[in-house]
Amino acid sequence: MIVKVAFPGERGSFTELAAIEYFGESEKYVCVPDFSDVFERVSSGACKYGVVPIENSSAGSIHQNYDSLLESNLHITGEIMLRIGQCVIANNGVKKKDVQTIYSHSAAFSQCKGYFRKNPALQKVQIPNTALAVKKVKDEKLKNAAAIASMQAAIDFEMNVIAENIEDNKWNTTRFIILGRKPERPAFTPVKTSVVFSMQNIPGALFKCLAVFALRDIDLIKIESRPVHGKGFKYLFYLDFAGDINDPAQKNAVNNLQEITSFYKHLGSYSCGRLAYPKYRKR
Amino acid sequence: MIVKVAFPGERGSFTELAAIEYFGESEKYVCVPDFSDVFERVSSGACKYGVVPIENSSAGSIHQNYDSLLESNLHITGEIMLRIGQCVIANNGVKKKDVQTIYSHSAAFSQCKGYFRKNPALQKVQIPNTALAVKKVKDEKLKNAAAIASMQAAIDFEMNVIAENIEDNKWNTTRFIILGRKPERPAFTPVKTSVVFSMQNIPGALFKCLAVFALRDIDLIKIESRPVHGKGFKYLFYLDFAGDINDPAQKNAVNNLQEITSFYKHLGSYSCGRLAYPKYRKR
Repeated sequence: MIVKVAFPGERGSFTELAAIEYFGESEKYVCVPDFSDVFERVSSGACKYGVVPIENSSAGSIHQNYDSLLESNLHITGEIMLRIGQCVIANNGVKKKDVQTIYSHSAAFSQCKGYFRKNPALQKVQIPNTALAVKKVKDEKLKNAAAIASMQAAIDFEMNVIAENIEDNKWNTTRFIILGRKPERPAFTPVKTSVVFSMQNIPGALFKCLAVFALRDIDLIKIESRPVHGKGFKYLFYLDFAGDINDPAQKNAVNNLQEITSFYKHLGSYSCGRLAYPKYRKR
Repeated sequence: MIVKVAFPGERGSFTELAAIEYFGESEKYVCVPDFSDVFERVSSGACKYGVVPIENSSAGSIHQNYDSLLESNLHITGEIMLRIGQCVIANNGVKKKDVQTIYSHSAAFSQCKGYFRKNPALQKVQIPNTALAVKKVKDEKLKNAAAIASMQAAIDFEMNVIAENIEDNKWNTTRFIILGRKPERPAFTPVKTSVVFSMQNIPGALFKCLAVFALRDIDLIKIESRPVHGKGFKYLFYLDFAGDINDPAQKNAVNNLQEITSFYKHLGSYSCGRLAYPKYRKR
């Protein structure tokens, strides 16, 4: 049975490339306007899965999606890492010297700071998605503008690439998470678990929370702190640790964690993602 | 003696307001184009101090400045929190319905997501600084554009405020740090210390690092993880903890920390900042 997978933006977006690497070419991919629409489509059951970026190796975490994970009732069912190569894409006949405005997502701008330092006259216009920026430049037949997006977006929209791999860091990688309505049994090992919690602001509180893992030799993979909205600088902690929530040590650790936290939520146990290099192709 | 203080952007930027709240009105404030120029001016000795934003209660950390702290040899000598009220600012005679384009910093856009949801046709153009966006709208005499910036920028540039306090969160607060070339003895208590470290990726490594503080009853104030550039998803940890590096327990804790980390750097010990409400005035 073909499943529906929601991704943000337009065909050729990095999230679509990540989704295809994860699910393969035969599923049905549904593009929705924004990250929040991905959560909405999966929550409502319109799509079985959704894919959103959660962290970039240069630009850091995508806070909006961390916040949405907290607010929604969705589960993380998988992840995949994708090497991100950013291209400057323009209409046919447009030369680099003609370009005055660049359309792209703010994350793409922050991955390509060196390019803007070398070309300080370029005006940056923020668009909700990189591939949407390409569509805009094409639809409006702009002759003095370009988009920063994937090679695949240039192929899909039949546009010209006027600069390739302009990202500052040649190992520029984005981690994407797969969202589903129900928890799923991880298909392969190693497995990781994501949780979010907060605790009273007392000395040693975070240390006690991490102790529940250390005492059981459970490896911490990532810790991310986020200010609680409207509470000044009180923090929520997003934690990724090794293992499945159904393993005995992990189950005991989170039971223990819930005794000492004021808020706790399980986000998902899922197979650790592989690093994929996108395959660009005419389609 | 009047000291020179560097801040990014233009007169009326939130960082200038924070700098004036911290140092008072009689010092000489020098505006420089970008965050990185603040680090450069202080490093070269052209300015005695610099001020940059480090964290916003809605939008999270300003990663670029965390990275610059790591790369520079500057010390954090103080901090201040500022309540941030965002205004939509336009040329005289321009009405809300005339505005098609909004110029601002990407952090201002992410603090005002609700405003753009209610006005989805608005085009967001990214500018290095909020007050610079006001200057641009004024200098280019734009009749179909506005800027998102502080009330002070509207006063300084003699422009009209067409919407006030459009930030999503009414407690929207930014934390700014003061940068100097030399460490300074904190003027008042309580004092906090900022450090950055990384360790081998082995189970319990972060727990051991935090143990050096917990065992001495030292309160952790903030922990921020950042991917190491070019190293995939290996992390650096920025840690703020209570107390002065010259206090015996804190000194022992960081000595202990250096035994178990592969990288360690002290960023500064400084008085905990107060929360300031900007005073807007004609000048």
